[in-house]
Amino acid sequence: MALKYAERMDRIKASEIRELLKLTVRPEIISFAGGLPAPELFPVEEMKKVSLKVLEESGEQALQYSPTEGFTPLREKIAKRMEQVGVNTKAENILITSGSQQGLDFSGKIFLNPGDVVVVESPSYLGAINAFKAYECEFLEVPTDENGMIMEELEKALADTERVKMIYVIPDFQNPSGRTWSLDRRKKLLEIANKYNLPIIEDNPYGELRFEGERLPSIKSMDTDGRVVFLGTFSKTFCPGLRIGWVCADGEVLNKYILVKQGADLQSNSMSQRELNKFLEMYDLDEHIEKIKKLYKKRRDLMIQTMEQHFPKEVKFTRPEGGLFTWAELPEHINTRELMKKALEKNVAFVPGGSFFPNGGHENTMRINYSNMPEDKIVKGIKILAEVIKEAL
Amino acid sequence: MALKYAERMDRIKASEIRELLKLTVRPEIISFAGGLPAPELFPVEEMKKVSLKVLEESGEQALQYSPTEGFTPLREKIAKRMEQVGVNTKAENILITSGSQQGLDFSGKIFLNPGDVVVVESPSYLGAINAFKAYECEFLEVPTDENGMIMEELEKALADTERVKMIYVIPDFQNPSGRTWSLDRRKKLLEIANKYNLPIIEDNPYGELRFEGERLPSIKSMDTDGRVVFLGTFSKTFCPGLRIGWVCADGEVLNKYILVKQGADLQSNSMSQRELNKFLEMYDLDEHIEKIKKLYKKRRDLMIQTMEQHFPKEVKFTRPEGGLFTWAELPEHINTRELMKKALEKNVAFVPGGSFFPNGGHENTMRINYSNMPEDKIVKGIKILAEVIKEAL
Repeated sequence: MALKYAERMDRIKASEIRELLKLTVRPEIISFAGGLPAPELFPVEEMKKVSLKVLEESGEQALQYSPTEGFTPLREKIAKRMEQVGVNTKAENILITSGSQQGLDFSGKIFLNPGDVVVVESPSYLGAINAFKAYECEFLEVPTDENGMIMEELEKALADTERVKMIYVIPDFQNPSGRTWSLDRRKKLLEIANKYNLPIIEDNPYGELRFEGERLPSIKSMDTDGRVVFLGTFSKTFCPGLRIGWVCADGEVLNKYILVKQGADLQSNSMSQRELNKFLEMYDLDEHIEKIKKLYKKRRDLMIQTMEQHFPKEVKFTRPEGGLFTWAELPEHINTRELMKKALEKNVAFVPGGSFFPNGGHENTMRINYSNMPEDKIVKGIKILAEVIKEAL
Repeated sequence: MALKYAERMDRIKASEIRELLKLTVRPEIISFAGGLPAPELFPVEEMKKVSLKVLEESGEQALQYSPTEGFTPLREKIAKRMEQVGVNTKAENILITSGSQQGLDFSGKIFLNPGDVVVVESPSYLGAINAFKAYECEFLEVPTDENGMIMEELEKALADTERVKMIYVIPDFQNPSGRTWSLDRRKKLLEIANKYNLPIIEDNPYGELRFEGERLPSIKSMDTDGRVVFLGTFSKTFCPGLRIGWVCADGEVLNKYILVKQGADLQSNSMSQRELNKFLEMYDLDEHIEKIKKLYKKRRDLMIQTMEQHFPKEVKFTRPEGGLFTWAELPEHINTRELMKKALEKNVAFVPGGSFFPNGGHENTMRINYSNMPEDKIVKGIKILAEVIKEAL
């Protein structure tokens, strides 16, 4: 007899996309699908020095249980780095999480009852949608343009929708669209959240990877009454394998995240926290980030240029100022899930865009990553993709 | 205006105990409170070699994203180690988790709707109770004796209780009681679970730390229809700071855990998984475990002997054959939360036992850890504790 699961498990399904993506790990595949950093930039030699130093100086502590909140010297350094997004804060307002994905899961756990509504950008990050779904919520998708979420649409939707409980946004180089919110939209969102007394989850995994222009202040930096929860991560600026992200929130709210972390996995990895902390002491992370930006900018330029040359004119795509992704819209009759199968036959992969719309539709869109493939494969892959699209026109 | 949280957050409260325990990290405290391994046995030198080797051989992969299920060579080795508890299984039935605490959280998420009932031993592990509470369940506490949960009591309770959804047990050197289930009880539990079609979460963090006698087969080893989920961890046999545990379950059930892991934190630490895998290749973990057992046996012997000599005869306590804890019952009029305050004044800490009973009561009990303190402090601390108890009599 089959076991009886919780009702939420009806919403947590293996996705067809994920099955397709499993095929993309074959070495012959040119993959624009994942959101993987360029591994050739990982500081492997530095990590050797850092690991040895941590084990020499504090081996027993690095291998022992440690506080749920995280390693205090690391929390202090993260608090200091929050100045870059205009936030003056302290270690006590930082919780170390196992990647920012864990911050997303906790946000759902802390704020959502079954049937509650989460406001998201349309499209929004697939991993966040999946994390929130486990709490049996509904999604209110608000249309976006090149300046982020359209505030008039948000106001209209909020006036018409009951049980809205939380707003989730990625204002910098959004996943999947690559777009960045204007300063005005950021201010307006906070104003609206104040009016409706809603928490804002501001997810910012890519903000530090700006190739050109000025970094904009975070929404958290304008937050006067503790309603913004800022999620950060070292996955894109250092390395994702160590799983170190953070939540920055005001006292009472952060306490909820700490309590939830306690029950979820007690604490993040003691050793990795100390290694990252030591890296930040021994090396210059911002210098390392400059290297990442230089490489990704080159790849973005090459990808966009190749798309401009080879994609049919019917395809529209974004020109991101930073981050990892561009986003393409094809003519409406083209289904990119079907297109993906054809592209895979020619050893090229991307993510069909429909998955980024929690309420379905938009099957004519695609997310294309430029951070993970070397330059020659970017050119080759985009040319193949252009051919596949032309055949489908 | 205060933000509105999910209803579950009413159940997730900061515990008074945890606040008290924060005081126990002061160096002058003799702490029998935590469940910490002896740090002097952590393989710090071996970890230096292992870290270097992993970074040399596969630095880029160790720092990159990796599959949700875990690092396959490590999953293979864990599958092989499951033979020690009588389970023949394969890598595909193993999911790597961030400590076995994460396996507990996922179990609640997968099986529990609000109002569902979880069967637990009375007393049971505080961390499991807290993890399950987040899913708004109720607890059915079944009385235990020196052979584990009393099966007649379980049968009676199941016949009288609706909405029972899951059974949670720690059959080997239970936390907090230190007791081990007899073979008969294990068989009987499975029989009853079959009858009521209930999943069993078999939590086994201490089973490998048996000081004497024969290791008993796990309940999972007798499971013929995939209803037992086995949770294991390297926190007590290797080191907890790396946060590596595992779930062993049959196909469909394990798939649910994998899906939930995907949304919760994508994957466990890539680097730590490879380090542990390399350690298992380069060194003999079982030899290392022998050292741990030898030390903990010495400490248990010393603690029990000192308790026998100095505790008043009104105090009953368990004589565990392995694991980390002994459990004491004091005369009913003594409240160990009050006693804890008095002990702390004299720089000795333990965990008041009431916290291990999800439905309250039993305030005359205490959990005492013997793994983490050196021998001289065990003797000194137990003598002080004996004095404090005598004063309260």
